[in-house]
Amino acid sequence: MANPVLIEVLRGTAVESCHTGAIAVVDASGAVHTALGDIDRPVFPRSAVKMLQALPLVASGAADTFALTDAELALACASHSGEPEHVATAAGVLAKLGLDATALECGTQWPSREPVLRAMAARGEQATPLHNNCSGKHSGFVCLACLMARHAGAEPAAFARGYVAAEHPVMREVTAALSATTGVDADNAPRGTDGCSIPTYALPLRSLALAFARCGTGVGLSDGHARAARRLRQAAAAAPFMVGGTDRFDTRVMQAWGERLFCKIGAEGVYCAALPELGLGVALKIDDGAARAAEAAMAAVAAALLKSDDDLLASYSHLRLRNWRGLDVGSLRPALTLAIRA
Amino acid sequence: MANPVLIEVLRGTAVESCHTGAIAVVDASGAVHTALGDIDRPVFPRSAVKMLQALPLVASGAADTFALTDAELALACASHSGEPEHVATAAGVLAKLGLDATALECGTQWPSREPVLRAMAARGEQATPLHNNCSGKHSGFVCLACLMARHAGAEPAAFARGYVAAEHPVMREVTAALSATTGVDADNAPRGTDGCSIPTYALPLRSLALAFARCGTGVGLSDGHARAARRLRQAAAAAPFMVGGTDRFDTRVMQAWGERLFCKIGAEGVYCAALPELGLGVALKIDDGAARAAEAAMAAVAAALLKSDDDLLASYSHLRLRNWRGLDVGSLRPALTLAIRA
Repeated sequence: MANPVLIEVLRGTAVESCHTGAIAVVDASGAVHTALGDIDRPVFPRSAVKMLQALPLVASGAADTFALTDAELALACASHSGEPEHVATAAGVLAKLGLDATALECGTQWPSREPVLRAMAARGEQATPLHNNCSGKHSGFVCLACLMARHAGAEPAAFARGYVAAEHPVMREVTAALSATTGVDADNAPRGTDGCSIPTYALPLRSLALAFARCGTGVGLSDGHARAARRLRQAAAAAPFMVGGTDRFDTRVMQAWGERLFCKIGAEGVYCAALPELGLGVALKIDDGAARAAEAAMAAVAAALLKSDDDLLASYSHLRLRNWRGLDVGSLRPALTLAIRA
Repeated sequence: MANPVLIEVLRGTAVESCHTGAIAVVDASGAVHTALGDIDRPVFPRSAVKMLQALPLVASGAADTFALTDAELALACASHSGEPEHVATAAGVLAKLGLDATALECGTQWPSREPVLRAMAARGEQATPLHNNCSGKHSGFVCLACLMARHAGAEPAAFARGYVAAEHPVMREVTAALSATTGVDADNAPRGTDGCSIPTYALPLRSLALAFARCGTGVGLSDGHARAARRLRQAAAAAPFMVGGTDRFDTRVMQAWGERLFCKIGAEGVYCAALPELGLGVALKIDDGAARAAEAAMAAVAAALLKSDDDLLASYSHLRLRNWRGLDVGSLRPALTLAIRA
């Protein structure tokens, strides 16, 4: 059965485009609060699970060993816009390890934020792996590798090399955290390669939402993972700019809502969130992969669950579309089928 | 009834995302060759109908009066990437009229092609309306306005001002051409404002495909429109770089196929094409508005209709997806439901 329309795109008063998808809202026991569409079909969560992938960084003790700050931990959960603060923070993590950008295996990406890209070009600068939106997550992986190398009596840079491979000790820990929090054995799930070259495992939205409910509450997690999740959520709330950047949804929402709402976008229309006070986790996927619809849907879900008529969430769920002259030409809106009770 | 899946997006061997939509292939008599999905629901054709919108420029005699070249006429049908050749060509049209970029009402847009944007920033340049992907179409509108002003004994710049408004004499001609070629009274169709500020009218894919079948054959058009359509198709085939730009699908396909295939993308997942030797027109819309799927679907349709196993069309219908390190991480592919007989 096809998934329902979640978001409509209006031009003038006519529906120009629409986005179907599925949404799971689950509590930490696995009880389903809301299921729209097929929440059991596996989806690649991509960057929406960066917080889960960062759990070993904290739980292993690596974050303490290398005295990572809130900003550095928030950046480990980020898909950042490549702004100077993001680049400097990632470089700072590597410097603490005695390493530099050559340790990163995420690939080179120009900043996604166009004014930042233009300013770099105007200064004659070139993009580096530090500008890659995943450079914080990868700096965290290298940090974990350095602690593992220390325990193994190995040379850190040599030990870290190849950390993006599924069978590398770092990635084994990361995959184990994904399996533990979602309750699904990722090693038996469909595997793809992510934009930043690490493996991504296709998991049901139901299980992804469960993982975020657990991370929001600590229920159902090991003590180490529960403490790590709490620390990462607190870090994101303390340094939300690091999770996204200027005018980014994740940043603006966490600036406004603090620890009440942890949310994170992933490529191809995925969104995950934890709402600790409600004990709920959210995972959604837009079938066609559109980020605009994923943001609008997450804004609508968050507003409904938090019983909020907050202007910020409404500005995303009902995003106004402007053309090159700044004229208001249309908007997004949640479809009637996107019905969530608080 | 929901439209069928047209394009699937694979990560590794798993389907990560999918795009539904509708496709109409029609001959100049209106006989339907292929209908996939709902071809009677009105869709905003956006920039996919720039050739139809350029018909009055030629049919009025304005293109001859101002001695427009193939490159300038191709640019009138273009959504270009803002490369230096596009900007210079648009500026050249305005210079022939004794005008400059201040006559354009399309708004300012940085070039869509990132290396071009970076090079501009490195030179300390700013975007202008000439860089807007629609600057060629708008230069054509201004050209038509100047001829109309001459006939009316009016001052050209003053006459042209406000040409983007639906009720301006220029836009009345443009809308009349749309109505005449599609056979649908655009004035009674849902109206929105396009990215470049002119009106866009929602029309059925069936009617859009008919218009392109007519423009490919001349059948069912006035003599003036038939001659104008032929001249515009020839211009696009002679100067395909002007229609798009470096590495753009429309440009590459028309470089390869010449007058055998005129095709043009529009925003929000629309594509239109004329295949003169087959007497067919094509119009398709991806429901969610994704350009990647519209290109892949058009490549698949063109390959099927032209009975071609051409590498270029296959490279778009089965586009390989690479990540930031250049690793092959997945691909697009036509769904089994995208079945077109030759």
